[in-house]
Amino acid sequence: MTTRDRYADGLARLAEVDGEQGQRVIDALQDVAPDLARYIIEFPFGDIYQRSGLDLRQRQIATIAGLTALGHAQPQLKVHIGAGLNVGLTPNEIVETIMQMAVYAGFPAALNAIFTAKEVFSERGLLPVEED
Amino acid sequence: MTTRDRYADGLARLAEVDGEQGQRVIDALQDVAPDLARYIIEFPFGDIYQRSGLDLRQRQIATIAGLTALGHAQPQLKVHIGAGLNVGLTPNEIVETIMQMAVYAGFPAALNAIFTAKEVFSERGLLPVEED
Amino acid sequence: MTTRDRYADGLARLAEVDGEQGQRVIDALQDVAPDLARYIIEFPFGDIYQRSGLDLRQRQIATIAGLTALGHAQPQLKVHIGAGLNVGLTPNEIVETIMQMAVYAGFPAALNAIFTAKEVFSERGLLPVEED
Amino acid sequence: MTTRDRYADGLARLAEVDGEQGQRVIDALQDVAPDLARYIIEFPFGDIYQRSGLDLRQRQIATIAGLTALGHAQPQLKVHIGAGLNVGLTPNEIVETIMQMAVYAGFPAALNAIFTAKEVFSERGLLPVEED
Amino acid sequence: MTTRDRYADGLARLAEVDGEQGQRVIDALQDVAPDLARYIIEFPFGDIYQRSGLDLRQRQIATIAGLTALGHAQPQLKVHIGAGLNVGLTPNEIVETIMQMAVYAGFPAALNAIFTAKEVFSERGLLPVEED
Amino acid sequence: MTTRDRYADGLARLAEVDGEQGQRVIDALQDVAPDLARYIIEFPFGDIYQRSGLDLRQRQIATIAGLTALGHAQPQLKVHIGAGLNVGLTPNEIVETIMQMAVYAGFPAALNAIFTAKEVFSERGLLPVEED
Repeated sequence: MTTRDRYADGLARLAEVDGEQGQRVIDALQDVAPDLARYIIEFPFGDIYQRSGLDLRQRQIATIAGLTALGHAQPQLKVHIGAGLNVGLTPNEIVETIMQMAVYAGFPAALNAIFTAKEVFSERGLLPVEED
Repeated sequence: MTTRDRYADGLARLAEVDGEQGQRVIDALQDVAPDLARYIIEFPFGDIYQRSGLDLRQRQIATIAGLTALGHAQPQLKVHIGAGLNVGLTPNEIVETIMQMAVYAGFPAALNAIFTAKEVFSERGLLPVEED
Repeated sequence: MTTRDRYADGLARLAEVDGEQGQRVIDALQDVAPDLARYIIEFPFGDIYQRSGLDLRQRQIATIAGLTALGHAQPQLKVHIGAGLNVGLTPNEIVETIMQMAVYAGFPAALNAIFTAKEVFSERGLLPVEED
Repeated sequence: MTTRDRYADGLARLAEVDGEQGQRVIDALQDVAPDLARYIIEFPFGDIYQRSGLDLRQRQIATIAGLTALGHAQPQLKVHIGAGLNVGLTPNEIVETIMQMAVYAGFPAALNAIFTAKEVFSERGLLPVEED
Repeated sequence: MTTRDRYADGLARLAEVDGEQGQRVIDALQDVAPDLARYIIEFPFGDIYQRSGLDLRQRQIATIAGLTALGHAQPQLKVHIGAGLNVGLTPNEIVETIMQMAVYAGFPAALNAIFTAKEVFSERGLLPVEED
Repeated sequence: MTTRDRYADGLARLAEVDGEQGQRVIDALQDVAPDLARYIIEFPFGDIYQRSGLDLRQRQIATIAGLTALGHAQPQLKVHIGAGLNVGLTPNEIVETIMQMAVYAGFPAALNAIFTAKEVFSERGLLPVEED
């Protein structure tokens, strides 16, 4: 497999998972760090998100949990909550994933993530969140 | 629902999810912070792990991802990798969850978590990890 | 003790400690994660902040120190700096608590927390901070 | 005030607060980074721990809370739990301080800190911890 | 050497490295925590940034890398990216330093830092970033 | 450029920078997460460490600073302190890099990193550290 394949596959997966928001990040990098944009396409989306072993819904549960726990990654969390919806997670599943992080990373990390989720759900007309 | 119900339900769920290792943590707390043991049983296991909305396999994906991202929680990660196996995750699913955190929390966090997983898999005779 | 008692006791303690700001967080959660609101009332305020062993001023010193060290919890830090004033800490005691974190968590964490404190003090007409 | 005064005052305060354990850290730095040892004496102990505004017991509550929340500072947490006892905190006050961090930094951070406290209490014959 | 010397030397180094932005932080602290301002001048700039062993360009590489990895220190990162330019780092060297942190601290930390760098470069008319 | 080139180039760079210790990590991953080993070779060493813009000594300053600030990455810090020596940093430059992180990430992070450096220097007969 050539490097170009990883790039093409990554770009397609980025569009599928992150949608327009992912492309906006890629565009914003062009005049400052275009190679970072390329690596994002090639490594996370051209390598990791191509893998079998977990489906895309499971991968987004992992990503939302990890970004919530980190605490300092609100812009990426916002993109990936949208991505979670894009690949079929329900708002309630996303809320449950974040709420569980209150146990492991503390209530502030969970609260900040929930309010980021609220923004995304609001933009998509998904409030109030209903139990599945 | 009384407090005693949360405690009883939590204790049962702790046994189901974390097995012996969870009980060992509870026991070790008795002479130093018995109420912290009680809160672990009541809140994470009596409240959060009782919830519908995610099944236990999804909850363990979230927990393993979050603990990997935190980086400083190796003893809890060890317990929850075991818990992931207890509730039906395959070793390969656990490896995929951790590996994805290389993207979000960096390679050191992912590497340390993988070596913790290797310990657990080795203790249970699950090495080498096979793709599903 | 029933669950309802924890909720009622927690709500009273939340009002006493966090005041209006706490209630605003609880309200904002209602359409996205009402159970997270309930857990905040029941566990931190219904369990932990009910405990003897430390008085409320000591608890707020611990909370302000912990949130400063975490670094990613500015909204919660803002609420708890206000809470510190509510339970009787002086602005100077809050500044000393934050400043000490420069040693343990670095100057950026301390600086960001001090500027959050400055906002709270300014809103309450408590600037300039006088030594006790 | 000359630099020498900060050093002398810091050394005295280090001995008072951290006892032998602090001196052991200072000694261990001599062949690798002696100036880091000097800065520890001059800045945290010669400047910060000389300040009025908080007494030493309050300062140790803040430090124990902050180090618990950080998660990666177990050796320093061990020294400062000992220091908390040295300046008059009870084992129970230390446990309460750590337990409160479960709310803000998550249960793993609190658990790891409690087991560090258990080591210190055990070395000093202070187990089981009694409520005050 | 007297304390006054550290202060004077620190103030001169702060002006050289951080420029106006450093002074603005110092000024903003005067009514809330003037001693924190004094410590910033005396310890980081009066002690650490006075040391030989690394030149100022190397020190800014270290600082930018460290602040990027921390994740919660965007205001300080902004000041120190400016400082990197002030002491002679090229925009490209700063981008490379940040991009390398994608490996160790994850892509979100690197992305947030790159967008902070983009702001600084934009304010100084340094976009697009050219390879050296 | 094909994927195989990245792998071959990455393996050569890994050997040059991390030496035997890097290979040991790669080997230890084979029965648990061989693809993580491959990604480490391809992305950090086949992409990032191949870049111009910073020389290898500057890259190790950045890496040592970042890993020190993270706090939870002692095994990787140990490898990269060795790598710093391999590419020509002096022990004193490594100590200065770590010591500077006391300002940004706090004294505990700096202290733990210094003691990791002490281990590496001791294994290579480089103690006591001399000023350059």
